[in-house]
Amino acid sequence: MTQSVNRVVLAFSGGLDTSVILKWLQQTYTCEVVTFTADLGQGEELEPARAKAQMMGVKPEHIFIDDLREEFVKDYVFPMMRANAVYEGTYLLGTSIARPLIAKRQIEIAKMVGADAVSHGATGKGNDQVRFELGYYALDPDVKVIAPWREWDLTSRTKLIEFAETHQIPVSKDKRGEAPFSTDANMLHTSSEGKVLEDPWDEVPDYVYSRTNHPEDAPDTPEYITIDFERGDGVAINGEGMSPATLLEKLNEYGKTHGIGRLDLVENRFVGMKSRGMYETPGGTIYHIAHRGIEQLTLDRGAAHLKDELAPRYAELIYNGLWFSPEREMLQAAIDHSQAHVTGTVRLKLYKGNAWVVGRKSPFSLYSEKVVTFEDDAGAYDQKDAEGFIKLNALRLRLLGRRGT
Amino acid sequence: MTQSVNRVVLAFSGGLDTSVILKWLQQTYTCEVVTFTADLGQGEELEPARAKAQMMGVKPEHIFIDDLREEFVKDYVFPMMRANAVYEGTYLLGTSIARPLIAKRQIEIAKMVGADAVSHGATGKGNDQVRFELGYYALDPDVKVIAPWREWDLTSRTKLIEFAETHQIPVSKDKRGEAPFSTDANMLHTSSEGKVLEDPWDEVPDYVYSRTNHPEDAPDTPEYITIDFERGDGVAINGEGMSPATLLEKLNEYGKTHGIGRLDLVENRFVGMKSRGMYETPGGTIYHIAHRGIEQLTLDRGAAHLKDELAPRYAELIYNGLWFSPEREMLQAAIDHSQAHVTGTVRLKLYKGNAWVVGRKSPFSLYSEKVVTFEDDAGAYDQKDAEGFIKLNALRLRLLGRRGT
Amino acid sequence: MTQSVNRVVLAFSGGLDTSVILKWLQQTYTCEVVTFTADLGQGEELEPARAKAQMMGVKPEHIFIDDLREEFVKDYVFPMMRANAVYEGTYLLGTSIARPLIAKRQIEIAKMVGADAVSHGATGKGNDQVRFELGYYALDPDVKVIAPWREWDLTSRTKLIEFAETHQIPVSKDKRGEAPFSTDANMLHTSSEGKVLEDPWDEVPDYVYSRTNHPEDAPDTPEYITIDFERGDGVAINGEGMSPATLLEKLNEYGKTHGIGRLDLVENRFVGMKSRGMYETPGGTIYHIAHRGIEQLTLDRGAAHLKDELAPRYAELIYNGLWFSPEREMLQAAIDHSQAHVTGTVRLKLYKGNAWVVGRKSPFSLYSEKVVTFEDDAGAYDQKDAEGFIKLNALRLRLLGRRGT
Amino acid sequence: MTQSVNRVVLAFSGGLDTSVILKWLQQTYTCEVVTFTADLGQGEELEPARAKAQMMGVKPEHIFIDDLREEFVKDYVFPMMRANAVYEGTYLLGTSIARPLIAKRQIEIAKMVGADAVSHGATGKGNDQVRFELGYYALDPDVKVIAPWREWDLTSRTKLIEFAETHQIPVSKDKRGEAPFSTDANMLHTSSEGKVLEDPWDEVPDYVYSRTNHPEDAPDTPEYITIDFERGDGVAINGEGMSPATLLEKLNEYGKTHGIGRLDLVENRFVGMKSRGMYETPGGTIYHIAHRGIEQLTLDRGAAHLKDELAPRYAELIYNGLWFSPEREMLQAAIDHSQAHVTGTVRLKLYKGNAWVVGRKSPFSLYSEKVVTFEDDAGAYDQKDAEGFIKLNALRLRLLGRRGT
Repeated sequence: MTQSVNRVVLAFSGGLDTSVILKWLQQTYTCEVVTFTADLGQGEELEPARAKAQMMGVKPEHIFIDDLREEFVKDYVFPMMRANAVYEGTYLLGTSIARPLIAKRQIEIAKMVGADAVSHGATGKGNDQVRFELGYYALDPDVKVIAPWREWDLTSRTKLIEFAETHQIPVSKDKRGEAPFSTDANMLHTSSEGKVLEDPWDEVPDYVYSRTNHPEDAPDTPEYITIDFERGDGVAINGEGMSPATLLEKLNEYGKTHGIGRLDLVENRFVGMKSRGMYETPGGTIYHIAHRGIEQLTLDRGAAHLKDELAPRYAELIYNGLWFSPEREMLQAAIDHSQAHVTGTVRLKLYKGNAWVVGRKSPFSLYSEKVVTFEDDAGAYDQKDAEGFIKLNALRLRLLGRRGT
Repeated sequence: MTQSVNRVVLAFSGGLDTSVILKWLQQTYTCEVVTFTADLGQGEELEPARAKAQMMGVKPEHIFIDDLREEFVKDYVFPMMRANAVYEGTYLLGTSIARPLIAKRQIEIAKMVGADAVSHGATGKGNDQVRFELGYYALDPDVKVIAPWREWDLTSRTKLIEFAETHQIPVSKDKRGEAPFSTDANMLHTSSEGKVLEDPWDEVPDYVYSRTNHPEDAPDTPEYITIDFERGDGVAINGEGMSPATLLEKLNEYGKTHGIGRLDLVENRFVGMKSRGMYETPGGTIYHIAHRGIEQLTLDRGAAHLKDELAPRYAELIYNGLWFSPEREMLQAAIDHSQAHVTGTVRLKLYKGNAWVVGRKSPFSLYSEKVVTFEDDAGAYDQKDAEGFIKLNALRLRLLGRRGT
Repeated sequence: MTQSVNRVVLAFSGGLDTSVILKWLQQTYTCEVVTFTADLGQGEELEPARAKAQMMGVKPEHIFIDDLREEFVKDYVFPMMRANAVYEGTYLLGTSIARPLIAKRQIEIAKMVGADAVSHGATGKGNDQVRFELGYYALDPDVKVIAPWREWDLTSRTKLIEFAETHQIPVSKDKRGEAPFSTDANMLHTSSEGKVLEDPWDEVPDYVYSRTNHPEDAPDTPEYITIDFERGDGVAINGEGMSPATLLEKLNEYGKTHGIGRLDLVENRFVGMKSRGMYETPGGTIYHIAHRGIEQLTLDRGAAHLKDELAPRYAELIYNGLWFSPEREMLQAAIDHSQAHVTGTVRLKLYKGNAWVVGRKSPFSLYSEKVVTFEDDAGAYDQKDAEGFIKLNALRLRLLGRRGT
Repeated sequence: MTQSVNRVVLAFSGGLDTSVILKWLQQTYTCEVVTFTADLGQGEELEPARAKAQMMGVKPEHIFIDDLREEFVKDYVFPMMRANAVYEGTYLLGTSIARPLIAKRQIEIAKMVGADAVSHGATGKGNDQVRFELGYYALDPDVKVIAPWREWDLTSRTKLIEFAETHQIPVSKDKRGEAPFSTDANMLHTSSEGKVLEDPWDEVPDYVYSRTNHPEDAPDTPEYITIDFERGDGVAINGEGMSPATLLEKLNEYGKTHGIGRLDLVENRFVGMKSRGMYETPGGTIYHIAHRGIEQLTLDRGAAHLKDELAPRYAELIYNGLWFSPEREMLQAAIDHSQAHVTGTVRLKLYKGNAWVVGRKSPFSLYSEKVVTFEDDAGAYDQKDAEGFIKLNALRLRLLGRRGT
């Protein structure tokens, strides 16, 4: 069953699971393992991963620890946010959007070090295996993919820990017992699922939330901020220019303080089942709301409505792991075309779980007080035009009515 | 210009504007005016409209005051909510959805009393004229439509009041000055626009809000409620069964208390301009969120995603006044088909502007703990299937990759 | 690997392949095989299948030979034609639409005879395996599916024939050599693919066509026919009422005579690869064109355009085997709703590969000569209305133009 | 009513109608008229228009006669063909696509000569007025538009001819009587409508066709040609490179000879009514079919299906005159992105009204004989993958089935 593999690049967090995978790969495939640890702003120290990899025999030049935070926000999060992408009406795709970047970097490293295989620690029931592997195959059609969770027989926590102990892999105390839920984190969001969350009727326990204050504990006084956009992307907070990752981090702080961006949902996985999860997307939620705010003022109706119709499809593509697909790129081309004048400032009020747009302005505003005003508009709009407009829009309905449908 | 008109049915609120219209119609068209005043739960007393109409010479048998609240919620609001319809990502269509019902009733009355014309008080810049008139024409292709705001020369407040005074139409004191904004209300929502709201950079002043507590003033303790759904429609709150209108009224109370459903937006009107408005949709917002919650559990992915793709179009149709159009009915048929098992209970947490789904259950749940579990699933799902699934989904991407796109 | 199976219902054509499968199932699963042979108008005698099954030990009461022609056309072909479904712009889905009916009947028989498994003769590279199996699983989620082509080791023609000979399965002479291409047929179409067709640059050889005259050999004189439709379905040819299957058969004759409905295409399979095929859909092509013809006259623009936008998705669902899915049913509900007045007569001219609509009439026509005429229309349409219509449609573009996009 | 106008640019064909308009403009607006006559390959001599304009007092430097043929095909027809745009399933948009170019050039000339108005000869019932005027307004929001057919009182042919005679405008003999139908022509197509075509049940008389041989009179021997495409656009016929307009002209000859591209249809106008027309699009029909042929081989499924879903909307935008709209440009960006590898050669067989793709090849082909073959594929595709693929695609349907929908 196991094809011969020479060298494999593993997406390696340094945690227990991927450490076991590292060892299992070495053993099962008698191959050289190259580790890749990405800093996507998940808020963990990454250097311990280096020590651990070294300890398990990975050559120093085969340990890759990359800070991808700016690339993540600039080339993945922001383009997605331009689309106002929301999966199933509520989910801001925080996990989904990180996978293609990891896959891309793994394939780049594989090419650099001459590896013929890549591997990841995603299980066989989830979406992430799909997202990783569609990314791998799109970028290197001939790469060998190893998905240990679908191959090995370490099917229970107990077996996994036994394997670790047998192979001198350190197991921290808190990993010995079963965690009450599992999480994934990056700069955009933290997801939690499993165990205590599995009954969708049970409220998510308070202790599951890790990145946002409980709205009840958030400040009693609202806070106002502004976000400046240029061509569809955020560039400044309260007038202070900052890089994409810095901007998102800053919004994460605001979101955390005010308890913004919590989501308890049941979603439909690409692999065919429903799952229940809890997501915290503090800064992303604020950003998403603000982006819609600036679009309200600067986007033409035709463009806006076309975007709204395309957005569910676009979101589905990202959710399903099809970032590197021609159809996602086509949609992106359309979306990006629409953003040329999405420039201006949005003012938001943050308060106990809420982020409200309370003002927006733009040098490219399409809003015309002169046209819309209840006051005399000095001929900017001829109300008589409305009659013809209605008459011709009604014509087909009248013909229908005469037929007696 | 003015064709001969014999009898006209006027959508009559009893307020200053429609009173002036009543008189203007009598005078301009020397025709008999029939008044129709609809109770859509706007929260005003309607009997004064009767007295006013009578005073202006309308025959008692030509004064129609109808309580349409149950019909409104059951046949208009609920079907729309089944679609999760949201215009431009945020607006729950509270004004738009009321117009077709008013138009329909006006045409019914016109047929009853043998009127050959209908009239309304909507201005020539807004969407409502379109919604009324497309409704009229769809239901009676040969009806004559009179839109006084597009015809007359009472183009300023001063002229309007002069006309009123000349014709002994009572003008209440607070109507003499310019209102700082204008509103429209029904059971689903209250909209406010114009004047103090015209600069989209200025925050909506506190005094504009009329139906919801300021979130800052809402209770400091969250409240939990449940809503039961049957076949896509709400049927009970906290286990207590109630009629559609009663249920929406009850949710309005919860929403008001907790400051839920405020929206400040800039929207694109069908007539081609952008306008800025503020909407309060307290109960509707809670209902909308709850409906999505129960769909998460009971709707198949294919159905859910198709609904998400159709929803922007459906919302646009309602916004544009095309309720009585074949394409809206086609979409409704598709949407209604999907709701057969959207039955169950949603639990919500209400707190200072927020309504969160915190639990959902259903006898028709498609969520399978057995399949999704992180624990041993006893063969309910074979993780090995995922490999083939990914491989075949990847095949076209690999062929693309080999071509070297 | 092979689970225990008690009784299996096999889709059995009586040909060599499914005969080998029959034997292989008996042998491999030591189970009882029930055969099901469907008459979908493929134009073969079916009784020999009975003899063959009996010879191979199938109990008489376990041999099902069903004439499904009327059900096929009425409940599958016609509903699909209402949608004007075309896959990838050209393919009328002749194979795809037959599979769900076969799957449905197999599951019905399985329930009748108490079988726990079903089996089919589709290969592991094609779409048909997907269509059969998605049908099976949708209709009986717990059925066991056996796909011999994916399981066995009879991977070459030679091995298959050896197996047949070893087991006394008669092999007709013309099956000994490799066929130059493979075909599938039913009343709607015949498909051909493989071998001589595999190079998409090579023209399809004349001998591959089996159901249509070469257009060059078709009559030199055009023929005119009429088709009557009622509520979207064909009911008569040249004024003579006939059942769905009879009508399609009759159109097949016309199509054959005039060389209509040939298609050489490269298509994208659901399993991820491109394939090249040749389809002959004589009657279906005429019917499809005629249906569009009657819709032109009787369908409102809003309905027609919505249908056109939904049709590619609908076609994709059928192609992918998702007939029994909620989303196909939702789309069908929308489409069927639109057909209430698609009633009338279409006149067609048939000539050497062409079928042209040359006339259409309907009691429910929405075409109004009075409105459209170049002559004086007596006020049916006020040209002045066009100005307002254009002005308001232009408003957003003018606001854009003033911004200087 | 008539605002003051200083100088107006008229789209001037030199025919009777626009000659009358020229004079009427001079008289009614006492303004200077600038004439613009476009060569879009309509196959008429244009120099007579110059003489006529001069005769009617237009200054020589105000007479513009421009050959726009290459621009028309390269920047309008080809981009549209990339989208496979078809209106209402059948119409290749030959008239619609010419209007934006004329409008654009008129506005350019207006800027050059300092004109403040533009005018056209389209009637108030048709789509062309909308297409011209939306183009004008999009490109110059402040331009004054004069649509004589909606303004004047020359509402009958007789009055028009009287006006002409009164003003010494030459009326050719054949214009004195009523033409039996009206036409519009450019390089892409000729449309005919009105009078003898007004009853949609009557077959189009033979004499209405002007650009294609009757299929019955076309050669009895098929002809084969090849078209080479590069990045989605045609570049050569039978291996001979040629410019866009030359290529289309050449295809028009092939189409004419073989009687290809006739269409008799009832269509839905943007202004709300149905009309019946006959279109001849000889070269465009061949080109359209060939473009689909090369896409079959070179376009990924995801891209192809997304294009198919967007195409009806794109076609509707062009039909409605929204070429210069943000949403058309967004769709174009998506479509153009997909064409990067739509390069290769299509072989077509032309015969008596038919154009069939009979072969296609490409250096960027995504068709893999190795993968698709019925023969042993040497491991290019693992049939066992299909099982997992089907199982996971079926999972949601099985969960549905277990619920008992």
